[in-house]
Amino acid sequence: MPPRAFRFLGGTHGPWVVTSFRPFRGEALPPVERIAVEPGLDPSLPEGSRWLLRGVTSNERYATKAEKASMQRVQAPLGRPEATHGAMIPIRKSAAWWALAQDERREVFEETSRHIAIGANYLPAIARRLHHCRDLGSDEPFDFVTWFDFASAHASAFEDLVAALRATREWDFVEREFDVRMVRAV
Amino acid sequence: MPPRAFRFLGGTHGPWVVTSFRPFRGEALPPVERIAVEPGLDPSLPEGSRWLLRGVTSNERYATKAEKASMQRVQAPLGRPEATHGAMIPIRKSAAWWALAQDERREVFEETSRHIAIGANYLPAIARRLHHCRDLGSDEPFDFVTWFDFASAHASAFEDLVAALRATREWDFVEREFDVRMVRAV
Repeated sequence: MPPRAFRFLGGTHGPWVVTSFRPFRGEALPPVERIAVEPGLDPSLPEGSRWLLRGVTSNERYATKAEKASMQRVQAPLGRPEATHGAMIPIRKSAAWWALAQDERREVFEETSRHIAIGANYLPAIARRLHHCRDLGSDEPFDFVTWFDFASAHASAFEDLVAALRATREWDFVEREFDVRMVRAV
Repeated sequence: MPPRAFRFLGGTHGPWVVTSFRPFRGEALPPVERIAVEPGLDPSLPEGSRWLLRGVTSNERYATKAEKASMQRVQAPLGRPEATHGAMIPIRKSAAWWALAQDERREVFEETSRHIAIGANYLPAIARRLHHCRDLGSDEPFDFVTWFDFASAHASAFEDLVAALRATREWDFVEREFDVRMVRAV
């Protein structure tokens, strides 16, 4: 089994060099030069790190069988040699979101906001891995951390993807979002 | 906000006296005399405890708006004075379950197995709190811990509830289940 639990370490070390670092909504993170990703959930901060986020990959929460099969046919894994550009986007949703029933969240997520359909337009160019933080049970600052990587040629497509998602009804439920862009150190 | 994270401590201490302790499917837990429940996720075993399970309450994963509203109208909280009987049932589902898409899991859970509808037949007599373990990200032995309490008069209704759920198609995906019954120490 591949690891499900990951730490995202912001500081002076790591293969990802930060090129842009800004809040989209809510409180900022303390600025850092580099990001490292490693397996595990240890909450202790290693030397050279200023903060860490943690999350676990999990089962799909909204995708239907057809949507899941379609994504699996087309999507690429993280870590392709040409994927020298990265983005880390942690998000926290509102209490109102989490109080919705499953069918209400699905309705906003896909029938209204077309989250899966929008993402599918950028496959396989943009690779993505979603990590859940909310059910770690501790006081995590975000509910999700999504990590993306892509080739330089698709950097503007990535901007289109992010802008399309932020324009949806689903994003009315996003109360905190931070946006880190990176390039892989040679 | 009420706490979302709980530890279930099996050992020689705690208000719940074990009256029945047996595996329903898969590996047993080491036998204990008492169970205590407390907030938190600390993995270290206190003196007098032989094992601990951990879990967090979370958003609904399958219930529709109508189902959720209907449950919320009728259900009782844990801890009613007359609820002197308790049950703790940790469950692990199979990899095949977790590989299903959301609509496939909902189909098995409710359209086929009537999990919510069966439970609703026992409200408000049987109070229930579901704790998720799988997305703690560590190597938890179970995916869920469900805690129930009820008055002595409803003990046989509780047996009916458990038997009805275990007869469903959903239970084909349960690969480990343990069953602890308790009474509250006076």
